[in-house]
Amino acid sequence: MSPSSTRTIPRPRVLSGMRPTGRLHLGNYMGALYNWVRLQHEYDCYFFIADLHALTTDYADPSRVQDNIFEIALDFLSAGLDPGRCVVFRQSDVLQHDRLNTLFGMFTPLGWLERVPTYKDQQQQLTSKDLSTYGFLGYPLLQAADILLYKPDFVPVGADQVAHVELTREVARRFNQLYPGNFYLAPDAAPWEMQAILEKARKLAGEPKNSTRTDFSHHQLFEAAGQTKKIGSFGRGEILPEPKVLLTPSPKLPGLDGRKMSKSYGNTIMLAEPEADLREKLKTMVTDPARVRRIDPGNPDVCPVFDLHKVFSSETVQAEAAEGCRKASIGCIECKSWVADAIVTAIAPIQAHRRDLEKRPGVIKDVLANGSARAAKRAQETLHEVQLAMGLA
Amino acid sequence: MSPSSTRTIPRPRVLSGMRPTGRLHLGNYMGALYNWVRLQHEYDCYFFIADLHALTTDYADPSRVQDNIFEIALDFLSAGLDPGRCVVFRQSDVLQHDRLNTLFGMFTPLGWLERVPTYKDQQQQLTSKDLSTYGFLGYPLLQAADILLYKPDFVPVGADQVAHVELTREVARRFNQLYPGNFYLAPDAAPWEMQAILEKARKLAGEPKNSTRTDFSHHQLFEAAGQTKKIGSFGRGEILPEPKVLLTPSPKLPGLDGRKMSKSYGNTIMLAEPEADLREKLKTMVTDPARVRRIDPGNPDVCPVFDLHKVFSSETVQAEAAEGCRKASIGCIECKSWVADAIVTAIAPIQAHRRDLEKRPGVIKDVLANGSARAAKRAQETLHEVQLAMGLA
Ligand code: SF4
Ligand code: SF4
Repeated sequence: MSPSSTRTIPRPRVLSGMRPTGRLHLGNYMGALYNWVRLQHEYDCYFFIADLHALTTDYADPSRVQDNIFEIALDFLSAGLDPGRCVVFRQSDVLQHDRLNTLFGMFTPLGWLERVPTYKDQQQQLTSKDLSTYGFLGYPLLQAADILLYKPDFVPVGADQVAHVELTREVARRFNQLYPGNFYLAPDAAPWEMQAILEKARKLAGEPKNSTRTDFSHHQLFEAAGQTKKIGSFGRGEILPEPKVLLTPSPKLPGLDGRKMSKSYGNTIMLAEPEADLREKLKTMVTDPARVRRIDPGNPDVCPVFDLHKVFSSETVQAEAAEGCRKASIGCIECKSWVADAIVTAIAPIQAHRRDLEKRPGVIKDVLANGSARAAKRAQETLHEVQLAMGLA
Repeated sequence: MSPSSTRTIPRPRVLSGMRPTGRLHLGNYMGALYNWVRLQHEYDCYFFIADLHALTTDYADPSRVQDNIFEIALDFLSAGLDPGRCVVFRQSDVLQHDRLNTLFGMFTPLGWLERVPTYKDQQQQLTSKDLSTYGFLGYPLLQAADILLYKPDFVPVGADQVAHVELTREVARRFNQLYPGNFYLAPDAAPWEMQAILEKARKLAGEPKNSTRTDFSHHQLFEAAGQTKKIGSFGRGEILPEPKVLLTPSPKLPGLDGRKMSKSYGNTIMLAEPEADLREKLKTMVTDPARVRRIDPGNPDVCPVFDLHKVFSSETVQAEAAEGCRKASIGCIECKSWVADAIVTAIAPIQAHRRDLEKRPGVIKDVLANGSARAAKRAQETLHEVQLAMGLA
């Protein structure tokens, strides 16, 4: 296959973002970043630091925002996101997110936002902060803009977050219904007309002479068609295709107190946790409460430490630990040291990479600047189409 | 005075915008544009076409937006806005409006927006459109961003619109309280330090050697100070100064049916109305209802036609018309022909200018492109300061 013909089969696009709230803990890592690193080999990936979203809850004290952005970027890269394989960028570097958000606001009923389940939930949970703000109500709409601006085929989420993507899909549907893509090539256009426009598009895109590429954006086709307002649609036919959910593993990851690992519970182990601290912390972790003395047999099925084994330890170690626990042939301290070994093995290369990157903060800056420029280019293409459809361009 | 020293006394800045809803009528003209043309001689003026705001009510049918933008730009220039004296631009060309709007949303309570008087009013009036949208609720916040992005000293409004600026002032106060300008020159900095930073700022701004200029933006001072986070403030000390209201004349301008001239009443005379149509329309205008026959004396104080005289006719003509009406020595047709003469005289040069500009649509495009570039530069300076203060830059 020639390079030009491989370009005609683009990889499906994936987009996801994370709020910068400080260094990542193992729960953040296994629930999202670990999957992202794998996705970049199969998909055209866009991953962003959602720093505007961080302000929806932390607007009153933004003193940590800068450091948090730097820390999460360090975690992204040290965990294996490769700027040569995916686009890593900062949301606030791309003003097009805000414009699309403004435009979506014009046709999004207040009721859609008021009934987003997380809205009332979070307001009730974070009572220490005043969250009756316009931006807090609207954060799922900004999220819809974050996503649709890049026209991803998939949004990777864990099983418990599927509902989060629903509003984005609703917004896309409403947009496509209000503004049917009526400015590019008609499917029933004369075949010679279609061919002529494709040829022009290939030329504009700098394709080689014998290229048979057909995967042009609506924007490119529109330019190629000489900006005439042709009725009909081309390709998938909608300006903002509804992204699908890509279910990714989000294993149960307990914190030191047995509850879900979460910054707000103060029960975390950090991805960058130094080995000695990690081993100390694990020693304090809760176990099967029935196993009071060393000679009492335990039940791994109810022990949070064993949940960590399931994620990090080999099958062999898991089997040994389970048997040793049930027969009381090992103590919890020993069992925990095994899981500590497994976690250390998993994160040691990441930490080594991190130490290396920490010495070169300029690299982080460059990666984000370069990623944001690439993201902004893609974002502007979509925004141009949207603004054409809405009469603004 | 040398040119460099005159630059140390900048003119106060004024900013205003208008929704593009089609060609302007005489009510729009006398209520706003007429004043703008005068303001540009005394103030540093920014005037914009609020095309994003047009979508808050017309999102479902944006087919006219493009034409409306062109028409209002034609009206702006033909009425005398001079791109050499003021900045004329299109809101949607400047993405910074949307970012500032997003940022303001983070700390603006929903209650502030729900209690804006025009919110419930307009929802009740425009029942034919679905206005329970997120964007409609938030339009006063976008307005606050439109304004504060340019740090105007004044916002020109008619007496009945003073309340509109109040939310903007509230938002500015809340911003300044949450984010005191703590990143530029301290007033209690050592005088030598202050001098050194001012000298650096002059150099960065390309001032001549002997310049004594001190009116630098916070952004410029911050750059000059080597981006160190000095505690304290400089100059007026707030990142977003509260703009003041500049009361401008908004004379009572009745439409053909005697009610306020308004597009929605269908009672308008356009600024670009051809003379013959204008005279025809005026003939149908309602008068003092007590003056049924030619020989009945009338009362100019209750006649809408006389309100037009007050705006457009000379004192002499006004006196003659009033006397003729009260004594029944003139008929309404004659009275109306006098006011028609006065209006035609007032708008003839504007119409001539318009016909000239219509032949050169490229001029409109260039003026807006140039104005938007100037506006975006100023907007980006403010946005940079705001984002510094909020931890994003
Ligand atoms: S031996 Fe391991 S699995 Fe069993 S209770 Fe102790 S920590 Fe948990
Ligand atoms: S003469 Fe003029 S002022 Fe008097 S009623 Fe007629 S139109 Fe009105």
